[in-house]
Amino acid sequence: MGPSRRITVLGSTGSIGRSTLALLEAAPPGRFAVEALVAGRDVATLAAQARRHGARLAVVADPGCGPALAEALAGSGIETACGAEAVIEAAARPADWTMAAIVGAVGLKSTMAVLARGGTLALANKESLVCAGELVLEAARANGATLLPVDSEHNAIFQALMSRGGEGYAAVEKIILTASGGPFRQASLAQMAQATPEQAVRHPVWSMGAKISVDSATMFNKGLELIEAARLFPVRPDQLEVLVHPQSAVHGLVQYADGSLIAQLGTPDMRTPIAHCLAWPDRMAVDVGRLDLAALSRLEFEAPDPVRFPALRLCRAALAAGGGAPCVLNAANEVGVALFLSRRLGFLDIAAVVEETLSALGGQPVNDLASVLELDAAARARATDIAAHRAAA
Amino acid sequence: MGPSRRITVLGSTGSIGRSTLALLEAAPPGRFAVEALVAGRDVATLAAQARRHGARLAVVADPGCGPALAEALAGSGIETACGAEAVIEAAARPADWTMAAIVGAVGLKSTMAVLARGGTLALANKESLVCAGELVLEAARANGATLLPVDSEHNAIFQALMSRGGEGYAAVEKIILTASGGPFRQASLAQMAQATPEQAVRHPVWSMGAKISVDSATMFNKGLELIEAARLFPVRPDQLEVLVHPQSAVHGLVQYADGSLIAQLGTPDMRTPIAHCLAWPDRMAVDVGRLDLAALSRLEFEAPDPVRFPALRLCRAALAAGGGAPCVLNAANEVGVALFLSRRLGFLDIAAVVEETLSALGGQPVNDLASVLELDAAARARATDIAAHRAAA
Repeated sequence: MGPSRRITVLGSTGSIGRSTLALLEAAPPGRFAVEALVAGRDVATLAAQARRHGARLAVVADPGCGPALAEALAGSGIETACGAEAVIEAAARPADWTMAAIVGAVGLKSTMAVLARGGTLALANKESLVCAGELVLEAARANGATLLPVDSEHNAIFQALMSRGGEGYAAVEKIILTASGGPFRQASLAQMAQATPEQAVRHPVWSMGAKISVDSATMFNKGLELIEAARLFPVRPDQLEVLVHPQSAVHGLVQYADGSLIAQLGTPDMRTPIAHCLAWPDRMAVDVGRLDLAALSRLEFEAPDPVRFPALRLCRAALAAGGGAPCVLNAANEVGVALFLSRRLGFLDIAAVVEETLSALGGQPVNDLASVLELDAAARARATDIAAHRAAA
Repeated sequence: MGPSRRITVLGSTGSIGRSTLALLEAAPPGRFAVEALVAGRDVATLAAQARRHGARLAVVADPGCGPALAEALAGSGIETACGAEAVIEAAARPADWTMAAIVGAVGLKSTMAVLARGGTLALANKESLVCAGELVLEAARANGATLLPVDSEHNAIFQALMSRGGEGYAAVEKIILTASGGPFRQASLAQMAQATPEQAVRHPVWSMGAKISVDSATMFNKGLELIEAARLFPVRPDQLEVLVHPQSAVHGLVQYADGSLIAQLGTPDMRTPIAHCLAWPDRMAVDVGRLDLAALSRLEFEAPDPVRFPALRLCRAALAAGGGAPCVLNAANEVGVALFLSRRLGFLDIAAVVEETLSALGGQPVNDLASVLELDAAARARATDIAAHRAAA
């Protein structure tokens, strides 16, 4: 075994961050060492994590939480800091491997800071690739950083691509993202029009937050993943497909020119894709449940219904338009989902708001991080306005 | 593109041989060149193949067919030869890539001749690995030859292993061979006891010869593949599993220590695994049907029934015994299947004959090719004898 791999976890108290630290803890002693841990405002958890893992630095994004963190780690020898700038500085510190799992715009900024210093970046922050995909890839290329996808679908495809042979993507015909189909897979359009937040967040397989559960119900989640896939894997958009697979055992597939289809399967446990990124290009042992196909007995597949799930078409349109369109789509969807969850917008209106916002602002270019954040704000404002008009109509 | 890869096909007029040549023909000009073609006795097909592909040498195993071959290729500039020795000499000629698709004992001798000169060997001759696995592997190691598996299941596993990361098999937990379950997957033991050859050869997915169809019905085919897998992939026997999967869309799977399961899927067309071997470590384009999971709609899996299919247990026992046991098992099974096909043995008696022959001769060692062939003959004689006693009883 070589020297310890130095690890930074951005978003260490969230679900992905906690899973990452659990994997580090279960690994053989000396294999990993923690450089920096960054969290939003959960000081107690962050401080406990920092002590347990012997982190060099612990940062809390909320400036008001700085004193509490300093107090919690007093005498530990662990450096502490707080505030948005400190988050970026922590991301910029050299590390061999960094987990980028901070959601939203702060996540995007810290992702860019990691890429600017190079190294390996495990990317769980969707906004980075959806809203600023071209900027992220350019930064990775310019600094020789390695991007590893943490999302279960993209990680599955990444694993299936390890079988492609040779260099490049010449033999890759299709990349297929699987989708559970969400709670409304078999619902009628009329039922979906009346859907409540309670019905929409009832995800059949993964246990997730409200926002992503609604995205799963509309299939915007899969559409955003399609955009991410287009950034991560250099194939044409028409080579990307979505396949509905209610059991969520197959996470992704790659079809090759020789007729082979390589798939990655597993139980729905994020520790598997995180561990794949942690150990890459090797693999490490993880104590997750193993998929038992005989016990599962049956895997089903169907094409997604474009009528009940317009999200896929909208996401493809945003991808084709390029520039700021994916950023606009993402912002409008976030607004739509929030309004739906607070019962101020119908379920099917989420896609309608996205479509209208996309027609209004989808042609805007983005040149840098600042213009992405500006367009994101403008799209949120416009989507809110459009939704208000719909609700009033 | 580099220089042409020089190809030899042992068994060019059989199904695997013809598929191999079809792939060479469809490949970009100059990518492959044919060194030698070897067939049993189908002179007309062999001569046409040799002319079409500009082979340097054409060999027919049946010595009586030599003059006809020489006449058919007169004036072509293609060298011709005939007889068992000429087959071995053709196999021993230098080539970059060789397909070993001659069935039976002659196939085994020519496999050893290829391994003795090194190079890449695509192995479709099951007897080589089942009866003389240790000798074959030792010859490959000693001469730096590369073995590529052609069987759809083993090729699938080979593809799935390309995703393993790093070197070695440390992260491989399980290797899973899929089995269609054959025509008696849902039959009762009483129905199987009465099974006719017509019922047994009705394979649900692949169209195959009578011998291998019966092997599929008894699951000896899968048991022999288990033995092959143990030779090809250096894992413990308890890491090898068989999973019944009636749709035969998933050909093989590898389970990794991080919980990932990598599978290879495809339509049941041997051109895919052959092409994978031809292009390895790259991939090439092949005009086979693509697997459409949405159209297929459902994949099913179940554990094999050890009571109705004792073949798996017997093959595991032969593998555990090592030495000459797999050779004895294979010989006894061939005898049993032939007697069953000629209605002189019941379907369930095939396994009974194998079991009894294995108890009688399974402890014999094998040291070289000659002792393998000798034991093979002895096992056939004993199995015939045992079957005659059963029929008389």
